[in-house]
Amino acid sequence: MKAAATLEEIYAPVESRLQAIPETILEILSTPNELAADVIRYFFSGKGKLLRPALTLLGAELKSTDEGLEPRLLKLASSYEIFHGATLIHDDIIDSAYLRRNIPTINVKWGPEVAVLVGDYLHDKAIAAIFENGNPSIVSTFLKTAGEVCDGEIHELKEKDNFVLSEAEYLAIIEKKTASLLACALESGAILGGANSAEIHALRRFGRDFGIAFQIVDDCLDFTGNEHEFGKTLGADCFAGVLTLPLIRLFEILEPAKKGELMQLFKSETPGKFQTLLDKVRDSGAIDYAMEKAKKYSAAARNDLDVFSDSPAKRSFERLVDYVLERNR
Amino acid sequence: MKAAATLEEIYAPVESRLQAIPETILEILSTPNELAADVIRYFFSGKGKLLRPALTLLGAELKSTDEGLEPRLLKLASSYEIFHGATLIHDDIIDSAYLRRNIPTINVKWGPEVAVLVGDYLHDKAIAAIFENGNPSIVSTFLKTAGEVCDGEIHELKEKDNFVLSEAEYLAIIEKKTASLLACALESGAILGGANSAEIHALRRFGRDFGIAFQIVDDCLDFTGNEHEFGKTLGADCFAGVLTLPLIRLFEILEPAKKGELMQLFKSETPGKFQTLLDKVRDSGAIDYAMEKAKKYSAAARNDLDVFSDSPAKRSFERLVDYVLERNR
Repeated sequence: MKAAATLEEIYAPVESRLQAIPETILEILSTPNELAADVIRYFFSGKGKLLRPALTLLGAELKSTDEGLEPRLLKLASSYEIFHGATLIHDDIIDSAYLRRNIPTINVKWGPEVAVLVGDYLHDKAIAAIFENGNPSIVSTFLKTAGEVCDGEIHELKEKDNFVLSEAEYLAIIEKKTASLLACALESGAILGGANSAEIHALRRFGRDFGIAFQIVDDCLDFTGNEHEFGKTLGADCFAGVLTLPLIRLFEILEPAKKGELMQLFKSETPGKFQTLLDKVRDSGAIDYAMEKAKKYSAAARNDLDVFSDSPAKRSFERLVDYVLERNR
Repeated sequence: MKAAATLEEIYAPVESRLQAIPETILEILSTPNELAADVIRYFFSGKGKLLRPALTLLGAELKSTDEGLEPRLLKLASSYEIFHGATLIHDDIIDSAYLRRNIPTINVKWGPEVAVLVGDYLHDKAIAAIFENGNPSIVSTFLKTAGEVCDGEIHELKEKDNFVLSEAEYLAIIEKKTASLLACALESGAILGGANSAEIHALRRFGRDFGIAFQIVDDCLDFTGNEHEFGKTLGADCFAGVLTLPLIRLFEILEPAKKGELMQLFKSETPGKFQTLLDKVRDSGAIDYAMEKAKKYSAAARNDLDVFSDSPAKRSFERLVDYVLERNR
């Protein structure tokens, strides 16, 4: 199998627009409040993948390259990165994570109070920017999605330390908390680009299938990643009591006696806990199992693209699906 | 001076509509997510003053009693209470408060993780409900206000333990964090009721002047209130390092030698800290000073109402101004 394309190659059809995103984000978030301005500059100095804005831009590119759209498109694409940032900042409080995009979390650097409020600020600004965009169909899709993301996160929290969490429930959670926003970012771009309702429907499906694959791989990287490459705290879910697919699978195939032992370990504060869990997860084949699942969702995502004829943007979506399976960040 | 009217008397012109608010709130927030549903039911079982929905309803009542408006009006009014709830839930994390509306905070009962997410959920649902209301001028006023509330809160956080915080900065903070949302709730009702732009402008000024008076009294009650009547943790600001008008005034009039002593006490974790601070604040006349300030803003608020001719709703606004100065909750 040949190596997957790099993100740079995948983003090529929208490269120049994507380069304008970091600046647009800071413009949207500009504030005379010095503390907020410092925190915002700091947070966005961490280099993310800009996946959500790229999806918006590629979604529009599938249909239209109209330059007149550009200002609205940049603002819309940036809004999704800002909204995503707000959820990351709040997630890092919840998980007590210390590293995000290779720099200490806001939580660690300024404390949870600042993290709560700056997260709220980003949240509000993203919503305001999407609203100002002025497309009612995008606003209503987005508001539904925001509710779904939050619902997914509360659902995840509710299932903490639930050792019999089913794979189906896990999938429902990650579809809500991760895939829905990826799909929404993509769908919004397509709406602005003038896609018809069948195309929008297909892209929504693609976004959801792709997003589920993306999150499963993320959850595998939480075990097997290299912290420096991954850019965030390894084992964060694990320490927060969140069971993801590798662990769910491990619990499913373990014989009852060993299961009790593992539950004790999972709930304990033993320093070597994560390394032991990691070894067990890896030895059991649970990571391979999870990666197989991710591959199935990736294949479904590729299928969803069938309604589109070949184009640079379509090829980017296809390559993105391969990239996700091989990514290490 | 005769006793101020009760809230019940003040709310009389919109009594029947106000009675429908708690149910409307729960309808807007209904969710199949059991944890979220439990927390929401619990939070709204605490009896708040419903000040924001009352302002929306009274704002509409000034101009129109059109029954056709009712469903939209109820939803709009409820949205402000939900949004306010979201900010309270996040504030209680920030202040580590244990009591809110006479029941333990979500923070205490479910932990900060749940509080962060349920706050986000309420936040999103409030915004979605305001958007669904479909009046662009209300949405845009609200989104600006949401940004302002957040900005005010971050500003307050930045000034923690700032013993030379000026009265002007304090006033700027409370106008943003409290008065702006009260004004917005009121203004939105008036817009829906069909007020003209001069009337809307006057109500915005009223909301802001009234809101500043309201918050100054709140900050006095944080010292002098009865925890059971006030319904929330006394001294919460004080323990969180937030300086409000009574303390700002005390620091201003204290001789330099005593100031250093008081700063030490304020920053300490001494158990008797709050009682000592309270005695000093009271003995210095700083509470009286703050209440005088509140009275000035109340007088300004009364003036703002001059453009309206006499009506039950207008009388309610006037009585509300008196109520705020005498309230103990």
